[in-house]
Amino acid sequence: MIPKEQAKIKSFRQQHGSTAIGQITVDMVYGGMRGMKGLIYETSVLDPDEGIRFRGYSIPECQKKLPKAAGGEEPLPEGLFWLLVTGEIPTQEQVTWLSREWAKRAALPSHVVTMLDNFPTNLHPMSQLSAAVTALNSESKFARAYAEGIHRAKYWEFVYEDAMDLIAKLPCVAAKIYRNLYREGSGIGAIDPNLDWSHNFTNMLGYTDPQFIELMRLYLTIHSDHEGGNVSAHTSHLVGSALSDPYLAFAAAMNGLAGPLHGLANQVVPGYGHAVLRKTDPRYTCQREFALKHLPKDPLFKLVAQLYKIVPNVLLEQGKAKNPWPNVDAHSGVLLQYYGMKEMNYYTVLFGVSRALGVLSQLIWSRALGFPLERPKSMSTKGLMQLVGYKSA
Amino acid sequence: MIPKEQAKIKSFRQQHGSTAIGQITVDMVYGGMRGMKGLIYETSVLDPDEGIRFRGYSIPECQKKLPKAAGGEEPLPEGLFWLLVTGEIPTQEQVTWLSREWAKRAALPSHVVTMLDNFPTNLHPMSQLSAAVTALNSESKFARAYAEGIHRAKYWEFVYEDAMDLIAKLPCVAAKIYRNLYREGSGIGAIDPNLDWSHNFTNMLGYTDPQFIELMRLYLTIHSDHEGGNVSAHTSHLVGSALSDPYLAFAAAMNGLAGPLHGLANQVVPGYGHAVLRKTDPRYTCQREFALKHLPKDPLFKLVAQLYKIVPNVLLEQGKAKNPWPNVDAHSGVLLQYYGMKEMNYYTVLFGVSRALGVLSQLIWSRALGFPLERPKSMSTKGLMQLVGYKSA
Ligand SMILES: CC(C)(COP(=O)(O)OP(=O)(O)OC[C@H]1O[C@@H](n2cnc3c(N)ncnc32)[C@H](O)[C@@H]1OP(=O)(O)O)[C@@H](O)C(=O)NCCC(=O)NCCS
Ligand SMILES: CC(C)(COP(=O)(O)OP(=O)(O)OC[C@H]1O[C@@H](n2cnc3c(N)ncnc32)[C@H](O)[C@@H]1OP(=O)(O)O)[C@@H](O)C(=O)NCCC(=O)NCCS
Repeated sequence: MIPKEQAKIKSFRQQHGSTAIGQITVDMVYGGMRGMKGLIYETSVLDPDEGIRFRGYSIPECQKKLPKAAGGEEPLPEGLFWLLVTGEIPTQEQVTWLSREWAKRAALPSHVVTMLDNFPTNLHPMSQLSAAVTALNSESKFARAYAEGIHRAKYWEFVYEDAMDLIAKLPCVAAKIYRNLYREGSGIGAIDPNLDWSHNFTNMLGYTDPQFIELMRLYLTIHSDHEGGNVSAHTSHLVGSALSDPYLAFAAAMNGLAGPLHGLANQVVPGYGHAVLRKTDPRYTCQREFALKHLPKDPLFKLVAQLYKIVPNVLLEQGKAKNPWPNVDAHSGVLLQYYGMKEMNYYTVLFGVSRALGVLSQLIWSRALGFPLERPKSMSTKGLMQLVGYKSA
Repeated sequence: MIPKEQAKIKSFRQQHGSTAIGQITVDMVYGGMRGMKGLIYETSVLDPDEGIRFRGYSIPECQKKLPKAAGGEEPLPEGLFWLLVTGEIPTQEQVTWLSREWAKRAALPSHVVTMLDNFPTNLHPMSQLSAAVTALNSESKFARAYAEGIHRAKYWEFVYEDAMDLIAKLPCVAAKIYRNLYREGSGIGAIDPNLDWSHNFTNMLGYTDPQFIELMRLYLTIHSDHEGGNVSAHTSHLVGSALSDPYLAFAAAMNGLAGPLHGLANQVVPGYGHAVLRKTDPRYTCQREFALKHLPKDPLFKLVAQLYKIVPNVLLEQGKAKNPWPNVDAHSGVLLQYYGMKEMNYYTVLFGVSRALGVLSQLIWSRALGFPLERPKSMSTKGLMQLVGYKSA
């Protein structure tokens, strides 16, 4: 598919390279690039009113079309990854191939295991995840190939290999963190090559309720990607553009996800508002539907449902937030609590494991399409004032 | 100074918030935001022809005006940090205060020492640096204060504390990495509260030649900041905007600096070309002057000088690179080699220690000025084609 995409973009740019698609204002520069069309990200697009579409498919469409586990009703994250990378809905066989491939690549090098086992209990799970992924870059096939001088047309192949390895290893890293912190360091057990990625993950975490496994399949599917401008996706895009390897790019993204205005919001109450969305997040809605189906009477779910009625009005009255509606983080906690995962500091790690599927899919394409270094121009307030001819009082 | 700056920006935005300062074209979005004015960064500005200015001062001006060590001729990085944070040239006393303050805050928590000592020798020094800084976030005063619910007007105070602590600790982390990898794990010794930051660093590395100490003062000054759009500064800005703490923001930046198109270029031959610069980098020139003064006859320096005559023409003939001139990374290696630091894989770590001064200065101001989440909009190729009304063949 790559030569076709390259050719398509080439003729598009030949005709429209200098076509203007928007203006930059002073407020946008102070306002964190809000509304600025700044980067190409092929795997998913966020519509302010409709929410996320993965390669054109909405979340309800993905729930309907993507392959499921035997006896399951939720989509398998393997299918979503296939869709993000290829743009096509995979068959059951293709998804099974991915499950096996990830099972095969899951082993952790011993120095990362040592590192995880030595972390103090007061080190936040997200820091543990990020530091471990950075150290996993000892395994990077891209870094090795780059040092040996491969041609740039081949970059994507090694980024693909690293992406596959990293996705395979993440549940092991995440499960080790969980067991070390909350289960007295009990072992994570062995990967079963006949189980899917989420099922292996829940086994390693120590959860066996089939409903929780289904929840995890849904959770890992819907947290994967949210176009390219959010802090975690953008960070991996930016760091990857300097040709840092996928481990380094993803670890940097995790440091962004660990911010309370981004992924860390799922360990606390908020989860309202959004920089782009202007309606209820469909990732919220599908979690609500899961709750209505499996835990309609749970008191915490009822509280979350009650907040849905109250919070938007409060935010609207206050008149500051541009979007008063709930996002993905307003609902995930209650589902995890219900099945016994009560360690809130850990929640962002689950988000992180899922986010790998999205940002690494795009990283493969970014190298395949030869995207250059991301390098905007910065301005000082003084320089900006001079530029527009403003004299400060 | 903060209320004054806030007020200034407020009235500026009231009058000019919607003033347009540039257009976004299709090529810019594919081209890594090149030429796009995208963020406010107060500490330094890069002029394509003139090179970097720190708070308005060029490198030769800084070399002249910033305080020096007793008997030394090169500027102290302490002075540059003071300048970046306050906009003013510090006195000798202010710089001495900073040296002592950093000496006081230098101790590493034991879990980070354990982590560094357990790293395998095949883990790249940059990965060691980044993972260690991520784990240092157990010490974050900002993260603790945020969790306790401080008011946003106070964010910058804790970011300042973290910045000071992190800058103080970085030479210890970096020196430990060096000794573990290249000096059989021999101890780094104790910090001397009467020595400046660079002198303590060279002591811990195990170098005592006064010329090398001077080189390090210059090196750590000139690598500190290069406005906000380069990958490391931008990454810390982006991650910090989600209110991730300074340790996480800086570690993410290091994963970007570890890219071969960015800081890692200093461990290899290149060091030509630049995304913004269109002349010889003044950071190159001042290193060349250092060499002309201290090692004019060194054969490697002669080679570097020879390349300066040859490479720009080769690049010009090839006709691709927009800037055929050398950047900072084309010269630093030869100076380090001359004084016996031959471990090239380590060079980017020195760059990283210096880069902390710049990006953390800006981080303090970003929180003081209340900058919001950085969140541009991304586009897919399909969406962009639709936007401009292009029909692909
Ligand atoms: C996501 C978020 C950071 C978007 O930021 P943004 O694009 O700057 O949002 P807006 O333009 O609507 O912000 C306007 C103002 O409303 C505030 N605001 C927005 N959402 C808010 C919320 N949920 N609670 C309180 N204040 C909020 C902003 O802080 C801002 O205040 P300021 O003008 O004093 O700086 C913001 O909505 C937020 O902080 N939400 C809570 C955290 C969260 O759920 N994050 C996960 C997102 S998936
Ligand atoms: C710094 C750098 C990444 C800037 O990238 P940029 O803004 O995309 O540069 P340009 O717009 O000039 O690039 C135009 C073309 O010339 C190439 N180019 C630029 N500098 C080059 C160099 N030193 N050697 C070989 N090719 C170079 C680019 O790869 C690009 O090729 P493409 O059109 O086939 O993709 C680039 O100059 C480079 O790779 N330099 C070497 C690494 C380095 O020294 N980095 C440290 C910078 S402080």
